[in-house]
Order: sequence, then C-alpha cells, then structure tokens
Amino acid sequence: MVRRPRAAGEFELIAAFTGALPLTGPGVLLGPGDDAALLRPPRGQELVATVDAVVEGVHFDHRFTPGDIGWKALAVNLSDLAAMGARPLWALVALAVPPATPAARLRGIAAGLGACARRHRLAVVGGNVTRAARLSLTVTVIGAVGRGLALRRDRASPGELVLVSGTLGDAALGLRPDAPAALTRRQRRPTPRLALGLGLRRIASGAIDLSDGLVQDLGHLCRASGVGATLRAADLPRSRASRALAAALGDPWGAALTGGEDYELCVTVAPSRLAAARRAAGRAGVTLTLVGELTGPGGVRVIGPGGEPLVVGRGHDHLAPRR
Amino acid sequence: MVRRPRAAGEFELIAAFTGALPLTGPGVLLGPGDDAALLRPPRGQELVATVDAVVEGVHFDHRFTPGDIGWKALAVNLSDLAAMGARPLWALVALAVPPATPAARLRGIAAGLGACARRHRLAVVGGNVTRAARLSLTVTVIGAVGRGLALRRDRASPGELVLVSGTLGDAALGLRPDAPAALTRRQRRPTPRLALGLGLRRIASGAIDLSDGLVQDLGHLCRASGVGATLRAADLPRSRASRALAAALGDPWGAALTGGEDYELCVTVAPSRLAAARRAAGRAGVTLTLVGELTGPGGVRVIGPGGEPLVVGRGHDHLAPRR
Repeated sequence: MVRRPRAAGEFELIAAFTGALPLTGPGVLLGPGDDAALLRPPRGQELVATVDAVVEGVHFDHRFTPGDIGWKALAVNLSDLAAMGARPLWALVALAVPPATPAARLRGIAAGLGACARRHRLAVVGGNVTRAARLSLTVTVIGAVGRGLALRRDRASPGELVLVSGTLGDAALGLRPDAPAALTRRQRRPTPRLALGLGLRRIASGAIDLSDGLVQDLGHLCRASGVGATLRAADLPRSRASRALAAALGDPWGAALTGGEDYELCVTVAPSRLAAARRAAGRAGVTLTLVGELTGPGGVRVIGPGGEPLVVGRGHDHLAPRR
Repeated sequence: MVRRPRAAGEFELIAAFTGALPLTGPGVLLGPGDDAALLRPPRGQELVATVDAVVEGVHFDHRFTPGDIGWKALAVNLSDLAAMGARPLWALVALAVPPATPAARLRGIAAGLGACARRHRLAVVGGNVTRAARLSLTVTVIGAVGRGLALRRDRASPGELVLVSGTLGDAALGLRPDAPAALTRRQRRPTPRLALGLGLRRIASGAIDLSDGLVQDLGHLCRASGVGATLRAADLPRSRASRALAAALGDPWGAALTGGEDYELCVTVAPSRLAAARRAAGRAGVTLTLVGELTGPGGVRVIGPGGEPLVVGRGHDHLAPRR
C-alpha cells in the first residue's frame, strides 16, 4: 500500500507545540506519544489534581503575547496546587485551535507554557489538540503532598487570622487600557505562590487561591469551614501602582476586594502560629499581610478605614462578560 | 457587609453538572470543592494519565443527545486507558459552555458522563467551567496499572500477530444520515474495552486504541516499535450492518481501514500467545480477530481479498472538517 501525503494538520500542530515543552522529569516513565502517560507516584504521598482552562476573549485577548497565554494557562493551575501546599509533578495540556492558527503562534504559546513549567520543575506528560472556533488551553496539573499535610478549605476555625500574600487588585486593574506595565504584567504573567504554600504546611489551618477576588474566594473557604470573616479594607496590601490607579478611579478598595486573577494565597492561621507563618513567607520571599479574622458563621464582612461597614459588589464570575 | 444577589452563572452551572456525577470512590480523600482534589494512589502501582476533548461540530453534533455527548467525552478517554491495560480511578472534567446553554442540557450531559463513570467505577474528582462559543468537554482520566505491566506502543516485534477487538468501521458509517441505529449507537456511545485491556497484560506485546482508523493508528504503533505491518482486508471484522452499508456505497473496506472513532483495541501478540489472547478476550466478552502480521520497517500494507495490494486513503484527522 502507498499512503498519500497528508495535508498539514493535527500531527504537525502537535509537533510545533511539543517542541518547546519539558516532556520528562521525575517519575515520568513514558511521556507524550503513547495512548497515555505512564507515571510513578512518589511513595507515601497523596496526589493533588486540578484542571483549569483559559479561553480567548475570557481569560486572554489580543493584548496577550502567545507567551503570556501559555504562561497563564499553566500558572493558574499551579496556583491551585500552591493553595493545597502541594508541589507540582506533571501537566497534561489540551489545546483547542482555530483552523487558521499559524504554527509560530503555537510555538510561542508553548514557549510561555514551557518557561512556566521549567521554572516550577514539572513535566508536560500528555496532551491533545482539537480544532475549535476560539483558541483555548485546558491544563490538568498533578502534584504531591505529604500524607495529611494538604492545606484545605474546610478546617479553619473562628478566632483564626486571615492573611494574604503579595498585593491585591493588580491583575484586575491590569486589564484597563491605561494600566501601567507593572499591573498588566500581573494580569498576563501571574506568579503561582508554590514556595509559600509548601512553607505553610503544618502552620496554616486553611488556604485558598485568589482567582475570583478576595471576598468571593474567602467566602468559599468560610462556607466550607462553617465560619464567617471580618476584613479591614485599610489593611489590604496594594501595590503603589494599583493604589494610584484605584484612587484616580475613585474606587480605592474595589479591585483589592473583588478583582479577580491575582493568584495570591489567602490563608488562615491560629494567632499562636502568626510568627511562624511570617517566617515561612520570608523564606519563600513573599510578603504575608494580616487583613482580618475569622468569626462565627455569617459571611464575609468588610470594615472601611473609619470603622464603617463597606458594601461590596459580587466577585468575579468567569462566565460573565468582562472586557 | 451585605452581598448583592448574583445572577445565574458559573456556580449554578457547576451545581447542575455535578449533581448527576459520582464524586467519590476508592482513593478519593477530597473531591470537587477545594482548590484541587486530594487522592491516594494505589500502593506499588504506576499511574496512567490521558486527556481528550470532544467539541461541538467536531466530535458531536445536533443529532447527539446530551447523554450521548457526556458518555462519549468520558468513553474516548477510557479507551486510552484500556489500550494501556490500566484500570480507571479518577476523572477531571473541564466544561466550556455557550452563554445561553440551559441547565437541563448540562444535567443531561452529566447524566451520560455519570452513567459511563459508574459503569467503569471511576469518580469525577474535579472540574472547571468556562464560557465559550461552542460546547466542549475536556476530560482527564487517571488510572493505575501494575509495575511494568502497561501495554505500550514501542515494544512490538516483527513476526508478531495483529489483532483487533469487536468490529471496525461502524462508528464512521454511523455518521451517515442513512445509517441504521446499530451504527449510530457505535458512533455516539462507544464502548471502551477496559476489561480486554486488563486481560491482555502479560499477554500482548503492544496495544493502541482505534480513534483515527486502523491504518493510521497501527501506523503509530509501527513507527514507535520500528516495525511495519501487513493487513488482510478480507479478515477485518465488520458488523452485518456495516457490511451492508459499505457494500451499498461501493467501498467495502474504507470504513473498516480508515474510519475513525470505533474505540476498539488493536493489539500485537507473539504467535505463541495467540491462544492466551483469545482466552483473555473470551473472559472479557469481546471478540478478537487476527487481521495481519508485523513485518520489518516499511509502513502499513493492506492486501485485498484477491491478494492484490490496496491503496488506502489517509486516516482520520480530527482537525480536518468532516461533517
């Protein structure tokens, strides 16, 4: 039999994409190329698995470079692992590609994704490519954590402290056309707080990553733990650039309270463990700021700078149009 | 703070979707609802992981019921695990939903996916929902296989036999408007051959699942193993319905050789292991048909019923339009 030559298609796109990715690493017995990846889990540890997608027009737009898209697709997943106190091991990447996508664009996306994977030492062990009307990347990440050490949402207690890493509101303000580069970079190249999550095992009582805004995400943790929370707006950590832009907009706290996509960690800590948490953050090279306390059940309350209650809009909903 | 009521959105859709799914099972320490799932891998086994997407207009259309879509999204992934000789443990489901999708449609999709998950005893431990122009489901499946027992593509040798399970060509012919129900069902509700894959560990030298058509998929196995293959068209197992429709179309072998999406297994077996392979297939309740032999390198050749070489078109490319 003589097989006719094939037009450029699935396999060429896969080759363009996988060329820039780290395809092997610890525990990878067989990476892409068979029906499935073959992996050896670390002995005596638990696995942590999550999936998240970034979609053109929802999570990125024409202002993102291909490298930004690839970086963000992986980073948002690694942020979930950070919030569990897990270290990443392996990723699987499902790519949906509009028919006319040039191979160079895929190589750029893969370069950004590969840079994020190398930074955090994980291997891309499998994937899939389909055509679609809009570009999207759906990334599954698998990591590991010692038995019983995972940071969960359902173990926090009234009286514990609420802390957040880094600064809040940068990514949401980074969507604005007038945003300075410091903020657009936070939107396009989020930093998953993996070292902090690892450092807070045995110290924090709970953790959640901030993808949908502090009030909404802390609300998830509160419901899972059966507690409430009080936040002090004046204590929210904000970058110099975000403070200036928020002040100019006449909405000093909105972005920090409800802006999504900062991918910082919100953690809960017993008062006796506050110093240990701060030391862990120092070792991870990240600031950790006390922003409130957990209370009995009753939702998330926000106190303004003069002690008055603030009414806060709903957080980020990834299904709602927002550009 | 008083939070304003939210419009129906991401969380309502998640609730509609997860209601019909089995969310826990062996090794599931923490299912959906935290930042990531927490899982205990089986001791002393290797993990098998794969991701695959089904996209509206590519892998399903308006003729599929919501239940068909959900079933197929999981089944195509389980087929990859079957081809590794693995048993499924956990799935993660990323759903992309057009804005106006009714919750009832999502419940129907979840019911089909849940039925397939229960049939094969796996838990859906995580997921994600985003909006998108077209409906798609990207499913990641994680399974387990004993150390060193995985069925791979790169271990086959010249002189070994090529066998296929079930019947070939049904799913491709099942796309036709004039297809009988027996064929449309094969297209919409494929059966992953998990019991067969498990039974062929220690017996088969290699395996691949048939998603893109026998000639193309066997070609992947041949390249990975550095061998070639000869297939005998007259020996291809075909259902009565597919034989009748193919004959009426004047193309007796096309669908069986290059039609995609049958999700049968193609396995390679040393001649001395043929009887053992047939016994394993009998225990799994699946037919296993001898269709050819592996040769030295040289691609996949097909011999017609009179001994003449057949020229075969290229196989299925999921990026090419096909409806």
